[in-house]
Amino acid sequence: MTPKRVDHDARRALVADAVLSLVAREGVAAASYRRVAQETGFSVGSLQHYFENGEEMLDVAFARIGVRREERVKAEISALGRPPTPREVLEASLRTGLPLDEERRVECLAEAAWVIRAGAGKGTNPSHGLPLLLGLFRGLLESARAQGMLARGVDPELEAQVLWALVGVQGSRLALDGSAPPERALAVVEYHVDRLFTSPADPAAD
Amino acid sequence: MTPKRVDHDARRALVADAVLSLVAREGVAAASYRRVAQETGFSVGSLQHYFENGEEMLDVAFARIGVRREERVKAEISALGRPPTPREVLEASLRTGLPLDEERRVECLAEAAWVIRAGAGKGTNPSHGLPLLLGLFRGLLESARAQGMLARGVDPELEAQVLWALVGVQGSRLALDGSAPPERALAVVEYHVDRLFTSPADPAAD
Repeated sequence: MTPKRVDHDARRALVADAVLSLVAREGVAAASYRRVAQETGFSVGSLQHYFENGEEMLDVAFARIGVRREERVKAEISALGRPPTPREVLEASLRTGLPLDEERRVECLAEAAWVIRAGAGKGTNPSHGLPLLLGLFRGLLESARAQGMLARGVDPELEAQVLWALVGVQGSRLALDGSAPPERALAVVEYHVDRLFTSPADPAAD
Repeated sequence: MTPKRVDHDARRALVADAVLSLVAREGVAAASYRRVAQETGFSVGSLQHYFENGEEMLDVAFARIGVRREERVKAEISALGRPPTPREVLEASLRTGLPLDEERRVECLAEAAWVIRAGAGKGTNPSHGLPLLLGLFRGLLESARAQGMLARGVDPELEAQVLWALVGVQGSRLALDGSAPPERALAVVEYHVDRLFTSPADPAAD
């Protein structure tokens, strides 16, 4: 990648992050070129250079949620300094979607804003990344089973749907309901995940 | 209750059902006195007699979702002709919220429309019934435990949150995504519930 390209991508990411914060605060409709120019310090002309149009800017910003979540999982796994277990990857993948800090709260709020917009029949369908996420969960559960670490009765394909529901609801509920404690959402997810895996003391899973 | 009062309540319920269908098709904003009058055949003047104002009409319609779901659970339990097990009540309570037929699809779509409206900062908070639902789930799981029918490791309080997430997401996803098969949502819920209870062949739960 040429330096120029890197610079271009870095600036698009910077703008996308600013769009996410704006959308989280004021909804998707607030993210006009004019407002985003005010927020970032770029001119409207520069924004028009970085994005084909306003809809592309919104699409890049929405995709940025997934990129930020993935980067967080990779950093957490890399910090282990050894190959992770399927359970560790699964837990990191669930945690990255919960609004446990300001960065993730912005992502969950922005995601909810896109879902609300799609519900009104406008813009990108925010569930287009769902098959990929379900495939990731299923693959991790299948790996755990191959290593004898999955609890009896867990069905990787159906369980992927349960996990998605769990992290999605806990994320949007927390993001939309300021009074719900984040620790509570984490406790619910950890409780559920714990029932999916064998503990060292358990008899071998079938 | 006097016949007059019964008549009044029956008409409010009839209007509320029509409002739900309208909201499911066109969103909460569509449910004006004028449109509801067109849909029901009542005059605007009659609607103003039955409801204090448009907001009360919307509130009654939203509450009607819960009433319809509860009536369905009661009918299902009553059809058993014997006292139900906690698992039977739980399964009926989960099924009643899934869009498995047109009646329930309307409820889920209307509910999603209210959530979308609340996300935009307007109207009744659709999650005000949540503590009651969580309490119902928790109570049923506690009864199952008292009867030795709950699987090891199930925590009634945390599990109530998991169940709520599961039925809520499967319901709204199905309602919003016409391509998702209802049987799939039911399979996910049944798979999950099955892991909460002991099967007759299992060793006793602790």
